[in-house]
Formats: sequence, C-alpha cells, structure tokens
Amino acid sequence: MKKIIQLLTTASLLITTANANWFNNDDKPKPESTIQNNKTYTLKLAETWPSNYPIFGDTTKKFKKLAETMSGGRLKIRIDSANKHKAAFGIFDFVKSGQYDLGHSGSYYWKGKDINTLFFTNMPFDMTTDEQHAWFEYGGGQELMDKVYAKHGMKSIIGGNTGNQMGGWFKKEINSVKDLQGLKMRIPGFAGEIMAEVGAKPTNIPTGELYTALDRGTIDALEWVGPSLDLRMGFHKIAPYYYTGWHEPGAELQFLINLKKYNTLPKNLQAILISAMKLSAYQMYNQSEHESAKNLAIMKKDYPNIKIKTFPKSVFNVLHKANNKLLKELAAKNTLSKEIIESRSNYLKKIRAWTTISDQSYLNSQSNIDK
Amino acid sequence: MKKIIQLLTTASLLITTANANWFNNDDKPKPESTIQNNKTYTLKLAETWPSNYPIFGDTTKKFKKLAETMSGGRLKIRIDSANKHKAAFGIFDFVKSGQYDLGHSGSYYWKGKDINTLFFTNMPFDMTTDEQHAWFEYGGGQELMDKVYAKHGMKSIIGGNTGNQMGGWFKKEINSVKDLQGLKMRIPGFAGEIMAEVGAKPTNIPTGELYTALDRGTIDALEWVGPSLDLRMGFHKIAPYYYTGWHEPGAELQFLINLKKYNTLPKNLQAILISAMKLSAYQMYNQSEHESAKNLAIMKKDYPNIKIKTFPKSVFNVLHKANNKLLKELAAKNTLSKEIIESRSNYLKKIRAWTTISDQSYLNSQSNIDK
Repeated sequence: MKKIIQLLTTASLLITTANANWFNNDDKPKPESTIQNNKTYTLKLAETWPSNYPIFGDTTKKFKKLAETMSGGRLKIRIDSANKHKAAFGIFDFVKSGQYDLGHSGSYYWKGKDINTLFFTNMPFDMTTDEQHAWFEYGGGQELMDKVYAKHGMKSIIGGNTGNQMGGWFKKEINSVKDLQGLKMRIPGFAGEIMAEVGAKPTNIPTGELYTALDRGTIDALEWVGPSLDLRMGFHKIAPYYYTGWHEPGAELQFLINLKKYNTLPKNLQAILISAMKLSAYQMYNQSEHESAKNLAIMKKDYPNIKIKTFPKSVFNVLHKANNKLLKELAAKNTLSKEIIESRSNYLKKIRAWTTISDQSYLNSQSNIDK
Repeated sequence: MKKIIQLLTTASLLITTANANWFNNDDKPKPESTIQNNKTYTLKLAETWPSNYPIFGDTTKKFKKLAETMSGGRLKIRIDSANKHKAAFGIFDFVKSGQYDLGHSGSYYWKGKDINTLFFTNMPFDMTTDEQHAWFEYGGGQELMDKVYAKHGMKSIIGGNTGNQMGGWFKKEINSVKDLQGLKMRIPGFAGEIMAEVGAKPTNIPTGELYTALDRGTIDALEWVGPSLDLRMGFHKIAPYYYTGWHEPGAELQFLINLKKYNTLPKNLQAILISAMKLSAYQMYNQSEHESAKNLAIMKKDYPNIKIKTFPKSVFNVLHKANNKLLKELAAKNTLSKEIIESRSNYLKKIRAWTTISDQSYLNSQSNIDK
C-alpha cells in the first residue's frame, strides 16, 4: 500500500514538474498546437470568504477578470463564496476531490489534514512579506509547496498577502509574561500553540461572534488582521490596547488548483491561469498596505482612545523560546516538516541580514531625522 | 500652437484611458471579436542595459517569455540590448518615435526631456518599494504617470525594483557634513543635486570607467545599487566603507509602450502585455532581494574588510533639508511637478505611519530578542 502511494506521489510530482516548466525554465515557448482551437474552459473556484469580503474577495474578482480578459474569454471563472458552498474550511477537500477546480483560502487551515501545509502562510518570528515572496520565488519555497500539495493532486500558488499582522486587541496592557498567563485570547493556529505554551488560554471563535465574546468577557483579547480589516469589526471600542505584530509578519493566502483539471488545459491557458493568480496576489499586498494606511489614519483621527503598543522584550523572549521548542518538536516528527522548517530558517537568516541594513536601517534613520 | 498641443494631449489621454479600462474597471470582459483571428504581432523592445545584464536583463527575458507563452505565440517580443542599438539613453526617443514599440529603462533618465518623468523611479528620503508599489496601484501613481507619458504618446508600466539602494562606497568614513564637502562622488540625478547643495562634487561617469576612476582618485566615492549588483564591480577592494541608503529607498525601473502601436493590439493581447510587464516587475523585486541577501553573505564571509556604516543623524538632517529646498523649487516651476510632489509626500506620510507600526516595529523588536 505504502509503495503504491509512493508511486502515485512520484507520478503526480512528474506531472506537476512537466506542467510547471513553461513558467520556470528558460526554453523558448513551444509551438502551440492547441491555440488553433477556440475551446472554452469553465473553471469553478470556491473561496473561504463570504460574498464581497473586502480585499480577499477583491483578489479573486481581480484574478477572474485578468484570466478571462487575457484568454479572450476562453477561460471562464465562476466564483462561489462561502455563502454559496456553505463550507468555509472545505476548500482543500473541494479542490482535492475535483468538486471545484480552483480554491482561494489559507494554507495553514489544512494543518489537521497535512501538517506540512502549515508552513506556506507564514510563521511566527519569521519572514516579512517581501522576504517570504523572495523565498517562494527564488529560495525554494514554491518547490517545497509543490512537493506538499502534489501528494494531494493539487498545486498551490501565492494568493495575496495581508501585510504584517497586528498582535491583536487587548483589554489590558501587557507588561510582562504574567499578564499573558490565564489570558483568554482568540488566536488560532501555531501562534495559539505558542500562547498555550506560555500559559495563555487560546481559543478559536467564529468570526460573527467575536465582538460579543470580547464584549462579554468570554475572551480578554483577540487578534484579527490589521487596520485594513480590523476597523470595521469595532474591537477598538472595547479593547483599546492595539499591539504590534510578531506571529504573522506577512500572511500569504493561497490559490489551489486541481492538477488533473490543470493538465487538461492548453499551455497558454495554464500560463494565463498561473500569471493571473500571481499578479492578483502581488496586487493584494499593495491593496492591504493601502487600506491599512488609510484606516490607521482614520483610527488616529476618530478614535483617540486606541493605544498602539509593542510587547516588552521580556515577553518576546519567552514567546520566541516557546516558538523554537514547538518547531523542534514538529521537525522531529516528520522529515518533510524538518526540510521546510530548515529551508525557512536558513533563508530567514540570510535575507534578514540584508533587510537589516536596507529597509530597517533606512526606516530607523528616517524616524530619527529632525522634521 | 499651444492650443494644438493641448488638444493633442487631451486626445492621447482619452486614448490611454479607453485602452487602460480593461485593467482597472470592474466590468466583465467584452466579447472578443479579434480573438478569432490568429494574427501574430511582433513587438521590438529596446533596453538600456548591455546584453545579459543580471537582474535587469533577466526581467525583460521573463517578460518576453510570459507574453509569448500566454499569447500562445501571437505576441513575439524581440529584445535589443544596448550592445545592439548603441544608445543606452535613447530608449525614450526610440519608443516615442515608434522606432521601437517597447522600452525597458528608468524613468528618471528622462528628466532633461520632461522634468515630470523624474518622479516615477523613486526619490530621496521617500517611499520604500512596498510603499511606492501601493502608491502606483492604489494611491494615484499610475494615473499621474499616465498623464506625464501620454503627452509623449507613450504609456509607462512598473519595470522591476532594485530594492533599497545602498548609499555607496567611500574611501573614508563620513562623520560629519564636513566630510562631504569637496568630496568627489559619482552620484547622478536628483541625489547628486542634493549632494552639490551640501558642498560635495557630484559627477556621472560611464559604468565601464567607474572602477578605474575610484582607484585613481578621480572620484572619492560612488553609489551603484546594492549587494545584488555591486559585488561584481569590485568597489569594495578600494573603497571599503559601505553606507546604508537614503537616496533611492526603492528604485523602480520602467517599461515603456508606444501608444499608437498599443492601440492596434486586440484587447486580450493588451491585457497580456501589461500583465506580463507587471508580473515580471514584481518578480524582479524578489530577485533583487534574493541576490542582495546572497551577495551580502558572500561579502561578510570573503571580504571582512568591508565596513557597513550609516550616516550620522547630523548628516541626514542636512541632506534632508537640502532635499526639501530643491523639491520646493521644482514645485514652484511646474504645476504638474507640484501635483506629483504633493501626491507623493501626502501618500508617504500616510503609509509611513503604517510601516512604522508594522514592518519597522516588527524588525526592531526581532533585532532585540535574545537569540
């Protein structure tokens, strides 16, 4: 049985590689026999987000428009939001099974199905958006993601970045690790595990119930995204301490593609599909930054009660130690996890040295100028 | 005469807007009558760079491959490097006149032809790469660039970012503004004007002669790009003080398109052209960051004589004051300059407030952790 799975895995890897080649190697494009037919392909996309969800939902709309326009109508994309398919966290299974051809979601939602999907959104104390984009495209990130998703008959492509996520909204100031102990906080995923490790009580609560949970004291704190999407949620009215980030310094969404379906497309439509995904992903990061800047200005003007804070060094030290301990445990359990963790941490070390003397040094010297 | 120019300008603006619409508005793509023909379009691109110039030249090759593959061969791109067309700084005129259909260069090279082209590469003490990308796509930057280039019958699209450029290689340490006075430095463009303002002697020297000029004392210092492209130049052997940046915190190259030619293309090929440009531009930024990280590691390992430094605050204060004075003079001379300068500075103020509590705060708290 294991052998068969291995064989299947190798086979799908070969298929992925063959079909991804147009994008990565330097050969000239092959004469396109399929271009002569004007066959139309309809692809169904399921997204995790509700209808018209800002930024995330704009990204799938942008992708649809790019793919349809570039293909001159030969690709038709039908987007179903969570309101329609009723399974926000069913995207992985939808695309794996072929019920949908495409998905738009977040890779780390699938860690219960395959632990190695965890690493392709972002990790605590890890790369910023730019650093991680370089890792995806030039540091081996895409290849590792291909390896993980090929096992499930899928391909994943970057799906848009939220930018550096804020650490969350707190009712009380955090002055030491003691203030985290017993703290009931909505913080899902790996960051939640770190919080548990240092004595907090992480929970996950459905989006629609978050405000009430915070208001009634079911939770004392929560993290959401950043000014781009937080302002509309109203958390600042009841939890005015807004902490800067550490746990998702550049969270990347994902597009998912069913490989069997992908392989039926002519090469030029494959290229259009992947390019439209990547371009709308890069543009989502611009939109996130723009909306965060805009909403932060509104916060500062209209909500002077919001207090922007950064955890003290002693708190970061303890969280960072817990992070390293949990990563070590993950690496010990699974060879591919180990490979991905090492790839990320080696790349982080190298590229952070550059970020330190480029953007970080620049921003710090700019803050220092007498204006 | 002036009236005719105004009419021509308005006409070309209308053409640009009409044709750019597929990319920006939210209408569904129109049925594509032209898709039925399989007509092939050959577009000639002239680039400022010599053959096989790393990163910059990779970007035009990537663009060519994307455009040709996505169009199934209906777009053919012929790239002529400076070795072929013999006029590195003739790109603007080549594309304006229609001698070439496309160009790849830097907008600020054309400030002698039209002062308002100056602002679309990057400016000293201004936005970082991410901040400026948000400005281009969501802050009105592309619209202003369209306004400037439509007057010349062209459209400009982002062409790839170098990342935060280093302040340059110096033979001696810079401890105060006095050390800049009389300093002979290769630093072209607006940054050179700032340097002149504070008493330095800026010059421009052809690339091939830079090393010898530095070696023989014709110049005392020079700026080039950053680790991504500096290492191969060997400057570190004779000018070991490597200063962090201030004058081009995110220099964006540009694609140029002859509008008359652009308007002959079917809508789907227009969409492919622009998307291939934008996607290869975003990927160039990833490549720049990757190469800088890689080469910085080599520098640290193999060239321990390199001393990475940051100008003291007193030097930045004086350079910043000179920058503001020169910008004020530019704004007073030209209404459109004033509009662009104000758009940039308003956007910078808003988005920098966000960068300060997101990436900058994150990077600083990370540097602080006990590892």
